[in-house]
Amino acid sequence: MKTDVLIIGGGPAGIVTAVTAKQNYPEKRIVVVRKEKKVVVSCGIPYIFGTLRDVEKNLIPDSVLTSKGIDILVDEIEDVDMEKKIAKSKSHGEIEFEKLVLATGSIPIKPPIKGIDGNNVFFVRKNPEYLQELMKRINESESIVIIGGGFIGVEFADELRKLGKKVSIVEMLPHVLSTSFDDEFCELAEEELRKIDVGLHTNSKVVEIKNGGVVLSTGEEIAGDIVIVCVGARPNIDLAEKMGLKVSKNGIVVDEYMRTSRPDTFAVGDCAEKRDFFTREVKPVMLASVATAEARIAGANLYKIKAFKQFKGTLGIFATKVGNIALGAAGLIERQAKKEGFDYVVGKSEVADKHPGTLPGTIKVRVKLLFTKQGGFFIGAQIAGGDTVGEMINLVGFAIESGYTAPRYMTLQIGTHPLLTPAPTAPATLKAAEDALIKICGNK
Amino acid sequence: MKTDVLIIGGGPAGIVTAVTAKQNYPEKRIVVVRKEKKVVVSCGIPYIFGTLRDVEKNLIPDSVLTSKGIDILVDEIEDVDMEKKIAKSKSHGEIEFEKLVLATGSIPIKPPIKGIDGNNVFFVRKNPEYLQELMKRINESESIVIIGGGFIGVEFADELRKLGKKVSIVEMLPHVLSTSFDDEFCELAEEELRKIDVGLHTNSKVVEIKNGGVVLSTGEEIAGDIVIVCVGARPNIDLAEKMGLKVSKNGIVVDEYMRTSRPDTFAVGDCAEKRDFFTREVKPVMLASVATAEARIAGANLYKIKAFKQFKGTLGIFATKVGNIALGAAGLIERQAKKEGFDYVVGKSEVADKHPGTLPGTIKVRVKLLFTKQGGFFIGAQIAGGDTVGEMINLVGFAIESGYTAPRYMTLQIGTHPLLTPAPTAPATLKAAEDALIKICGNK
Repeated sequence: MKTDVLIIGGGPAGIVTAVTAKQNYPEKRIVVVRKEKKVVVSCGIPYIFGTLRDVEKNLIPDSVLTSKGIDILVDEIEDVDMEKKIAKSKSHGEIEFEKLVLATGSIPIKPPIKGIDGNNVFFVRKNPEYLQELMKRINESESIVIIGGGFIGVEFADELRKLGKKVSIVEMLPHVLSTSFDDEFCELAEEELRKIDVGLHTNSKVVEIKNGGVVLSTGEEIAGDIVIVCVGARPNIDLAEKMGLKVSKNGIVVDEYMRTSRPDTFAVGDCAEKRDFFTREVKPVMLASVATAEARIAGANLYKIKAFKQFKGTLGIFATKVGNIALGAAGLIERQAKKEGFDYVVGKSEVADKHPGTLPGTIKVRVKLLFTKQGGFFIGAQIAGGDTVGEMINLVGFAIESGYTAPRYMTLQIGTHPLLTPAPTAPATLKAAEDALIKICGNK
Repeated sequence: MKTDVLIIGGGPAGIVTAVTAKQNYPEKRIVVVRKEKKVVVSCGIPYIFGTLRDVEKNLIPDSVLTSKGIDILVDEIEDVDMEKKIAKSKSHGEIEFEKLVLATGSIPIKPPIKGIDGNNVFFVRKNPEYLQELMKRINESESIVIIGGGFIGVEFADELRKLGKKVSIVEMLPHVLSTSFDDEFCELAEEELRKIDVGLHTNSKVVEIKNGGVVLSTGEEIAGDIVIVCVGARPNIDLAEKMGLKVSKNGIVVDEYMRTSRPDTFAVGDCAEKRDFFTREVKPVMLASVATAEARIAGANLYKIKAFKQFKGTLGIFATKVGNIALGAAGLIERQAKKEGFDYVVGKSEVADKHPGTLPGTIKVRVKLLFTKQGGFFIGAQIAGGDTVGEMINLVGFAIESGYTAPRYMTLQIGTHPLLTPAPTAPATLKAAEDALIKICGNK
């Protein structure tokens, strides 16, 4: 078999690379090889269980590829000969190609806990049959323990409470969500979790998983008919290592155009190493939004380098919803900025997300922005509020990525509407920038 | 009486000028003079009638000023002597000042229609007592005719339907909202209005208002116990004219720092003339968001010019909600771009506002972006979708104001979340920019 572009991996990174490549190079044949018969919406996984209640409702249809003339091969690539440009597949023999893209994703981390291999233990696998089985077991359970209080863990907890299950989260760090948010925002999330009766065990370590629950290092036991492990994932670099690509434990090493250490070979998504936008340090984020941003870069640059399509480092724009509030973060949080030695000021604001604030459904918006003390450059943002936080955080993300400073940011024009935004007299993020500017410059 | 800064007008423009001035010049005394005892949230006016059902719930509390040490004077300024820097008030005698800010707002346009002065005819006045009376009359009415299908007219219609009133809109132009949106977006709004049984009479002119309804130029009569006139407003420049400031029929002429033709005299908000960001033509928009943006500029520049705080022309970022959909626009629409002779391309996308699209409450997001053919500069955006449109339109507004081009825009990093945003594989506005870029450059 012969193709022009071979993409290994059928998740968001593989799909967007394929679609972008087809848009940029319509005459090229593009084949996506993936192991799974069906592809789940990865970030939608928690919502299968409480809201959708059906794995089939959380699939990406093949038509996003096939309608554009991109071929799908359900198979596994076992090795690649980069000299000859031939991939060896399990079931379809050899595949010749011109350009190769690795979008092999990530593998859930299995912490070394006694009992972790028990059949009451589940991981967040992007596999419809596995998730089907998990759903069955969730439905049969009365109590569930979630190990790990990151995004996925917290979202799972929220969803499982909608089913009326008894839910506990065990998190080693002092707060849930604490790799992405400063304490005061983590505490807002924890308040919401408590409101919906999620059992929170922070600063806690599971030392054993038994039938019927987990044992903490303190000896305390927490009841759980099943245990869901949400402690993150590691890049799937097995094939890359076999191929002799340059890798680190954080993924396949890539440049600004998502090229690997070998010619004509690209890597995108969870399997590719990421560097922080500001610190240039390795940044272990695994987000579909980052994966697809990288994929848009790789897809465009496969045959011709497009100078404007560079990936300048990962900002890491997160959003989630816990109980009644949404939380978003972009760029650096204060804990990171402090640790990395940034000289920064914090600007804050608190406003209503609608105007007047007497409108039904009004939620308080809390904004915390970070700017460098010198120059006033925008380096980070955290927002908590209603459902519009998902787009508000993108708006500040744009400003951060664009190199905005506090004075320039606070004079930007915005639109407002009573039902849709904070008041024109209280533009949430602009007010926080103003607060920071006064701290930088004083009042004059 | 003596003050440092005298601000005439207590609406959003006056308030934000005062607050910004106090932040920048805390040692200065600031007095806001206004006619009204209480200040209504101007953009919230339609929502008083169906949602809030109480004028008192739509007020801006005086504490936004008084808590910052800003004085309020309920009075009327009858004339100003700019040589002596003395304002003559109706009830408080002469007021000496150093800097003067006119934030005198606008006055509803009274179209020359027979019967317009009848006591069954109401205008959109920012006056709590007047709005109280309007509410009483609305409650007593069975049918209501709205003259003018702009934002306010459409929002009124939507709200009055919530009360179960029979509501009709009469609009002279072919579509409602057509000064702000291209036809296909206006039609989406009209669909929503029809779904909630608002009687739509576009291309129609009221020639007479009678007791019990209006008469169109065709002779058709439309029943209405009361008539609400929402055909826009004209700048209130009476005092400015008396003072000899340079004015046009579109308002007080101002520069980039909101300075008028006289020293130490600024003008902000509806009473100040606006120029379009791209065309530099006069732009007759009256939005609280624009007024407050101008106010932030004026307040900062009162005593010392801050070079970065310039108003570079009005983008005009609008958002509204009609029935179940929200609509937003920023910069130029296609109708304007065509008329003004721009050489442009249109990029479009249609995606779900959540992911997967099977999530409850998912609404289709429709995006239309305009870029210049040469250079690919971002000049306009229109979006229809769910409640997050209010912030999405701000995000593209930022990009337009920042001089983004299609290629740079489409590689921006964004965050996504199943419940809060479109999918990472289908970022609404980035995809539309990609569509435009392909039209500009072809596929290579």
